[in-house]
Amino acid sequence: MTDSRLDALPTPCLLVDEARMVRNIDRLADRAAHLGVTLRPHLKTTKSVDAARLTLTGGTGPATVSTLAEAEVFARAGITDILYAVGISPDKLDRVVALHRAGCTLTVLLDNAEQARAVAETSKASGLKLPALIEIDCDGHRSGLTSDDPALIEVGRILHDGGADLRGVLCHAGDSYAAVGHAAHAECAEQERQAVVNAANVLRDAGLPCPVVSVGSTPTAHAAQDLTGVTELRAGVYAMFDLFMTGIEVCDVDDIALSVLTTVIGHQKARGWTICDAGWMAMSRDRGTAAQRVDQGYGVVCDADGRVIPGLIVTQTNQEHGVIARRPDYTGDIPDFPVGTKLRILPNHACATGAQHGQYHVIPKNTDAALKVWPRFGGW
Amino acid sequence: MTDSRLDALPTPCLLVDEARMVRNIDRLADRAAHLGVTLRPHLKTTKSVDAARLTLTGGTGPATVSTLAEAEVFARAGITDILYAVGISPDKLDRVVALHRAGCTLTVLLDNAEQARAVAETSKASGLKLPALIEIDCDGHRSGLTSDDPALIEVGRILHDGGADLRGVLCHAGDSYAAVGHAAHAECAEQERQAVVNAANVLRDAGLPCPVVSVGSTPTAHAAQDLTGVTELRAGVYAMFDLFMTGIEVCDVDDIALSVLTTVIGHQKARGWTICDAGWMAMSRDRGTAAQRVDQGYGVVCDADGRVIPGLIVTQTNQEHGVIARRPDYTGDIPDFPVGTKLRILPNHACATGAQHGQYHVIPKNTDAALKVWPRFGGW
Repeated sequence: MTDSRLDALPTPCLLVDEARMVRNIDRLADRAAHLGVTLRPHLKTTKSVDAARLTLTGGTGPATVSTLAEAEVFARAGITDILYAVGISPDKLDRVVALHRAGCTLTVLLDNAEQARAVAETSKASGLKLPALIEIDCDGHRSGLTSDDPALIEVGRILHDGGADLRGVLCHAGDSYAAVGHAAHAECAEQERQAVVNAANVLRDAGLPCPVVSVGSTPTAHAAQDLTGVTELRAGVYAMFDLFMTGIEVCDVDDIALSVLTTVIGHQKARGWTICDAGWMAMSRDRGTAAQRVDQGYGVVCDADGRVIPGLIVTQTNQEHGVIARRPDYTGDIPDFPVGTKLRILPNHACATGAQHGQYHVIPKNTDAALKVWPRFGGW
Repeated sequence: MTDSRLDALPTPCLLVDEARMVRNIDRLADRAAHLGVTLRPHLKTTKSVDAARLTLTGGTGPATVSTLAEAEVFARAGITDILYAVGISPDKLDRVVALHRAGCTLTVLLDNAEQARAVAETSKASGLKLPALIEIDCDGHRSGLTSDDPALIEVGRILHDGGADLRGVLCHAGDSYAAVGHAAHAECAEQERQAVVNAANVLRDAGLPCPVVSVGSTPTAHAAQDLTGVTELRAGVYAMFDLFMTGIEVCDVDDIALSVLTTVIGHQKARGWTICDAGWMAMSRDRGTAAQRVDQGYGVVCDADGRVIPGLIVTQTNQEHGVIARRPDYTGDIPDFPVGTKLRILPNHACATGAQHGQYHVIPKNTDAALKVWPRFGGW
């Protein structure tokens, strides 16, 4: 029996299963409590004040963001302890100062002397001791200094001696996304912990302050066995989960809270294709599962109630067309989908699919209640 | 000398080189005039009323769209002859009727009897003869009926006899994107023309009306040698162009009017990486050039004035980080980019990169004038 509340929704559109989302949020909150660290959820996945209320401790607790636009929106919503976890560019510091003046404690991130000098100079010029973390590299994934790099102490001194508030160190085990399974992620988590704790000790041994020791990625956050020396844990996509996270065994398909509702608009029966109105504009161009053991195409096909239909994925997309077809290795029966049939597609990557949409349609935990709409924002 | 007008822009942001855009628009308008067909530009690439004014004949001339949201925005802006070139789903017909009642002649597209019956029934129920085109398949790319499919006449009769306005046939040579070079695209264009002209003749031989014979894709529109029997030409990405179109030789790199302005935020010098603030959120996840002869990564790196810097592409992206590095085969020198340096990245796919942004910053044709802002919209 199809949920009649979905009938009135224009397709394609973004659906959230609130019960699953709450379960995902509670799962990581329990882990953080058990590990004895503060949870600082990353809001870049959901970019929604309503979703943030559900995700953050007490509705306004510590948060992580990926853009200043996020910081500005969430600060206006009363979320005032925010970490901007992308290396600061000097010309963005005027907006950082404006956020502080508006009552938001925004911590910036950096990994080089040029950034540190800019933050120190802006601290002096503004009369604000801008809080900053130094990014540590644990796996060669992207940014950050290794704990044995002499630049670590140099950057720390520029900040501390220059009038900024050196708050500590941060690490993101980006390579954990390429590892599969709990044991592998636990190893990545320990590598992440060691790198950042070592860096904290280097700063402290040099007489510099380092109260914050921050780690996190969704895979390591769910696998860490011990976070001794760490003060806070970050993760983002876990609130929604997606097929990529299923592929590396951080969650099950039934944990994925985000989907795209679509309508069948035609067929190419000779080719076994069903054409639907969820193209890449609705799904995003993310093909993150392409290199995984199971390539999920542009997404896994479910019925309108969210039950996976065996053997079917979105095999190709154009801007506003999705082609639903059989997985290469599937030999079972495939149902017919008359024109007008509603289906749901589970996405490869919740951050990327979410970003294609201006709002969520939320299926509330209370299954009898009306659907809710959560506005979503983008931009920088 | 860097254009100082760009200094105040927050990065990442979307730039349009208006002079290039006008040149691209004029190029295809001249071709359409020479070929003796009406040009019906596809507005799905730019999704902007300001861009539409520049692109459409007389500022409001015939247009193509990919979503009803586009039709609604453009109709409110006085663009009243619109083709919605994605197969209609029956539950969208109430919005089609509303557009007609608001004075917009919106033509729908379909390729099956279920859709045709829905359009005919809605025509009768509303008292409007809803105009419809039948989609023709010339290359097995996606949707459409072949001209020898008995369903073609069946669908035509359902529309015509059922009270809709059977306007004609439409074909999109989607496979032309996989062909390289003018001669290959000219062949695709002839295949597209023959398929749709044959289909028109099938309908006319059956006593059905077929005043409109519509073809188009950016590659075929730029290569067609003869459009006998065709009445209108569609294309979309040509107004901006992109690296994908460069890769199949429809345009030069210097024709690309769209770019993303970015700021350098750090380095991993041992790996030869420059980190910038244009991640996949700014560029999109589109990797359309991955399968071309030259893989352009996530984009080609230019200086702030738009001059290509030899040997550099965005090799990887995270949500808000881009990694700029050497092309695998490049052995020349690479300049240093201090933190704060502004660069421009040319995109793989203008439709996908544009969709990540809420506005264009336009460098006007008159090079002394101030930058303009063109709002951009999305959604369905």
